[in-house]
Amino acid sequence: MSVTVVGSIAFDSLETPFGKRERVLGGAATHFSLSASFFTKVRAVGVVGGDFTEKEWEVFKRHNINTDDVEIVPDGKTFFWRGRYDYDMNVAHTLETQLNVFEHFQPKLSQESKKSRLLFLANILPTLQKKVREQCPNAEFVAMDTMNFWISSMKEDVIETMKTVDCMIINDAEARQLAEEPNIHKAARKLMNIGNLKALVIKRGEYGAILFTKDSFFACPAYPLESVFDPTGAGDTFAGGFMGYLASQKEINEDAMRRAMIYGSVMASFNVEKFGTERIDELEYHEINQRFREFKRMTHFDDIPFERTTTV
Amino acid sequence: MSVTVVGSIAFDSLETPFGKRERVLGGAATHFSLSASFFTKVRAVGVVGGDFTEKEWEVFKRHNINTDDVEIVPDGKTFFWRGRYDYDMNVAHTLETQLNVFEHFQPKLSQESKKSRLLFLANILPTLQKKVREQCPNAEFVAMDTMNFWISSMKEDVIETMKTVDCMIINDAEARQLAEEPNIHKAARKLMNIGNLKALVIKRGEYGAILFTKDSFFACPAYPLESVFDPTGAGDTFAGGFMGYLASQKEINEDAMRRAMIYGSVMASFNVEKFGTERIDELEYHEINQRFREFKRMTHFDDIPFERTTTV
Repeated sequence: MSVTVVGSIAFDSLETPFGKRERVLGGAATHFSLSASFFTKVRAVGVVGGDFTEKEWEVFKRHNINTDDVEIVPDGKTFFWRGRYDYDMNVAHTLETQLNVFEHFQPKLSQESKKSRLLFLANILPTLQKKVREQCPNAEFVAMDTMNFWISSMKEDVIETMKTVDCMIINDAEARQLAEEPNIHKAARKLMNIGNLKALVIKRGEYGAILFTKDSFFACPAYPLESVFDPTGAGDTFAGGFMGYLASQKEINEDAMRRAMIYGSVMASFNVEKFGTERIDELEYHEINQRFREFKRMTHFDDIPFERTTTV
Repeated sequence: MSVTVVGSIAFDSLETPFGKRERVLGGAATHFSLSASFFTKVRAVGVVGGDFTEKEWEVFKRHNINTDDVEIVPDGKTFFWRGRYDYDMNVAHTLETQLNVFEHFQPKLSQESKKSRLLFLANILPTLQKKVREQCPNAEFVAMDTMNFWISSMKEDVIETMKTVDCMIINDAEARQLAEEPNIHKAARKLMNIGNLKALVIKRGEYGAILFTKDSFFACPAYPLESVFDPTGAGDTFAGGFMGYLASQKEINEDAMRRAMIYGSVMASFNVEKFGTERIDELEYHEINQRFREFKRMTHFDDIPFERTTTV
């Protein structure tokens, strides 16, 4: 089985307190695909320009990511983003955005991509997300991301798309903004009801991530990192680990989703250790399960209720 | 065995988006004592004025909190604080502070209070905390709180006191400020080394709390609350649950501290459900363990590592 992702493929120029990189491979679909590829077969849908080189394709090939549905516009240029992070790594300062070929992106899904068991709609125009979702009526589990820009400028479209998916994977501030509710638990309930979602995943950066399902709440911390080199793509890498792991499981139920939250957090924690896709590109399997076990250790406590009689 | 706490006893006038209360019982030592009293014997050390009435003493008595070391200044007035919270419940706006009898507070510990197995130095002048600590050379486990005001104005004193305790229980922003380090994990390592602490607890409000020990890291989420009525005293209530639970345990080791983190979080989650001490005052034992079990449920995931061969 496999997961199909639709989203941006980009060149990023990045500057953080730890260094700089010029025109490295980036984009939501890229980060998602690489992360998910450790767990399942991935089909990426996107668009690139004639400036996309063999070096970039090699990254996808190395991880067996199917790129048949990545359109190439030979006389166009690939989406480009230049950003800077200061010491508060939670805030990306956009210095330059060139949409280029992405401006007129119309996702074209092959029959194969439409048949994927899971579908992830990365952060693109909500009306486009909806069109893609409608092309995959048989997908068992569909998740979407979005961003503050769409919530501010076309909230109704975001909500209409939300009504067609099973799961939303968004940031803390975006959840509050979309629900118009400062309390995150009230906001989550509101979004679950509007969307009739099976699951809502809220990403909270250094504070971890939380999962809401119809009857349950699950909290997962972030991995304790003393240095975050570059947070670019952390959210999409999380989503890739989450969806990729789910695609590997026979049944997409609460237990599988909880483990998927941990695998998402594991993958995101690796992603930020180096620039762009560098760390995930070189990642080895044994590192993933090693960190999964560390998550178990750092959240474990013995289930021994307090008894007044045992008081010393 | 018991825990001794030294800190403020106060009247608070509170205003939140959910309502108002005039001159209700408050103060760090009060919130701590009430919370700890569910787990162990508590001795409170503080000072009040002649305006402290039977109604307030009754709250302490109801919970078997020993107040022999609470000094009464008959012609003085009890410490008074007036504060307001807006929708961002993380930020308290101080409208009025009258130190009153607290201004010249010189903690006097009886032999009994000096003999407690555990000691908590709530947020008072760091030099006073140190004097109290020195009066209890045989305490097995001593913890301190502090606040941004002392860190800004007398950082050296805070550090000198920190060097004499086993554990520090502070807020996220205070930890970063004290360590002069924005990354919380680097900040924690720095503070552990400066202080030679056995444990460092960092409280993160709605994001939960984290525990650093010499060799380990533990993360605990906050209880999912749709309404926070009044966050006043949540930190001291956490500390009371943490220290009170530890006092009830034969051995103060890593496992006990992890459960203490959960009990601290449990107690804090009750505290904010009503104004001031109202909720903890009426709390029943079975509610505590019920919520403890909910913490287990909301952090549990099966320890099943990913295997490539099991991919469907």
